[in-house]
Amino acid sequence: MRNFKLTLCYEGTRYSGWQKQGNTGRTIQEKLEAALGEVLGHPVEVAGSGRTDAGVHAREQVASFHSGTDLPRELILDGLRKRLPEDIGAVSLEEAPARFHARLSCIEKTYVYRVWNSDSPNVFDRRLIAVIPAVLDLHAMHTAAGMLIGTHDFSAFCANRHMKKSAVRTLKSLTIEHLGSEVRFVMTGNGFLFNMARIIAGTLLQVGQNERQPDEMAVLLASKDRRMAGPAAPAQGLTLWEVRYPQAQ
Amino acid sequence: MRNFKLTLCYEGTRYSGWQKQGNTGRTIQEKLEAALGEVLGHPVEVAGSGRTDAGVHAREQVASFHSGTDLPRELILDGLRKRLPEDIGAVSLEEAPARFHARLSCIEKTYVYRVWNSDSPNVFDRRLIAVIPAVLDLHAMHTAAGMLIGTHDFSAFCANRHMKKSAVRTLKSLTIEHLGSEVRFVMTGNGFLFNMARIIAGTLLQVGQNERQPDEMAVLLASKDRRMAGPAAPAQGLTLWEVRYPQAQ
Repeated sequence: MRNFKLTLCYEGTRYSGWQKQGNTGRTIQEKLEAALGEVLGHPVEVAGSGRTDAGVHAREQVASFHSGTDLPRELILDGLRKRLPEDIGAVSLEEAPARFHARLSCIEKTYVYRVWNSDSPNVFDRRLIAVIPAVLDLHAMHTAAGMLIGTHDFSAFCANRHMKKSAVRTLKSLTIEHLGSEVRFVMTGNGFLFNMARIIAGTLLQVGQNERQPDEMAVLLASKDRRMAGPAAPAQGLTLWEVRYPQAQ
Repeated sequence: MRNFKLTLCYEGTRYSGWQKQGNTGRTIQEKLEAALGEVLGHPVEVAGSGRTDAGVHAREQVASFHSGTDLPRELILDGLRKRLPEDIGAVSLEEAPARFHARLSCIEKTYVYRVWNSDSPNVFDRRLIAVIPAVLDLHAMHTAAGMLIGTHDFSAFCANRHMKKSAVRTLKSLTIEHLGSEVRFVMTGNGFLFNMARIIAGTLLQVGQNERQPDEMAVLLASKDRRMAGPAAPAQGLTLWEVRYPQAQ
């Protein structure tokens, strides 16, 4: 059996997220498995680096799968590109070591939450950005962001109420970039809980609008109570930006 | 009567171009006039800086119109933003001197033709870029571009066969930018004939693929014969980028 590492990008607008759900045909994973099955001539099950929610995009998503195929790598990639819809792109395909697994081997991910902070419409990126024209207090958001960095129990930022496993994650960095009318929250961590990136964005946006003080972040983390944090910011503003693996993989 | 200068942007994908055609409801001008008519309470006829073809986009398009309305400028702009579809954006609205006319006062325009020069799909900008994966000879395209700059009779680059007026235009600059997998033709001139920007792009792309020599450009211009130039490159790659007026306007 050969083991493959596939790098993808997608615009999530039309999809119910990454994870397959029966046979709705409305998830990225289903579209990908259907296309790969046609190219390889056998059913394929792929593992993604992680799920993305309905409406969330990926600039870089990684999936791994096994196949006994003899087809050269380039032909598989070409066949995939011909079959995938125009909002899912196959960027590259590599052969990976036998132990490589897109989710289990992943050591770090970066998510970017994009906010369009203007009354003037953003026509070209309208599917990729959340529109919040209210004045944002960047200084307060910076302060709050700094308090979230580090290793914490992020239960307050997890939408899964029945989470039985540990909710401890390390948020390695959380920076706020300001580019013209756009504000970006760039989050890098070793793992993200269900809705975590969007709840962080939603909470920072409350701080930015002075609906919440930056120093509440410590209380919020300590509470481990989802009801204490802000709402999940709209899915369309979130993009899985980068997925990292140890050097050899 | 007050005279207004409106700055717009739009994604042209869904439209049959700028210029209104009866009552199809599928042109930018019709959408704009309908929205303005509702806001102002009287029929409005707008003048655009120029037409854009079906499928061509505008990062900046300017339209002018007259109205006797008492409404403050901000309210007109707000009303317009509420009524325009999501692929047409009202960027700004200013009061202009009585003599200002979006087309007649315009002194310079910049068009950008975007080429995605890779096998790997561009998912996020797919509606705004033409995909040409073939290897492009940038040096040859630069040479050809240099020969088109200046004041020439551009009849060979005009799709209107029944053009009675002068086809002399000044192409002030034509640069080729190379950003990763993207190649951009950036054209600035005092005016562009029907399809001129797309025919220039289509001809440069032939040069880039060695289907045509750079020094043919002189012969081509001298011929004044549309059949001598290359095909119009696909509309979706073209964006009206900037529209300039004399300082006072």
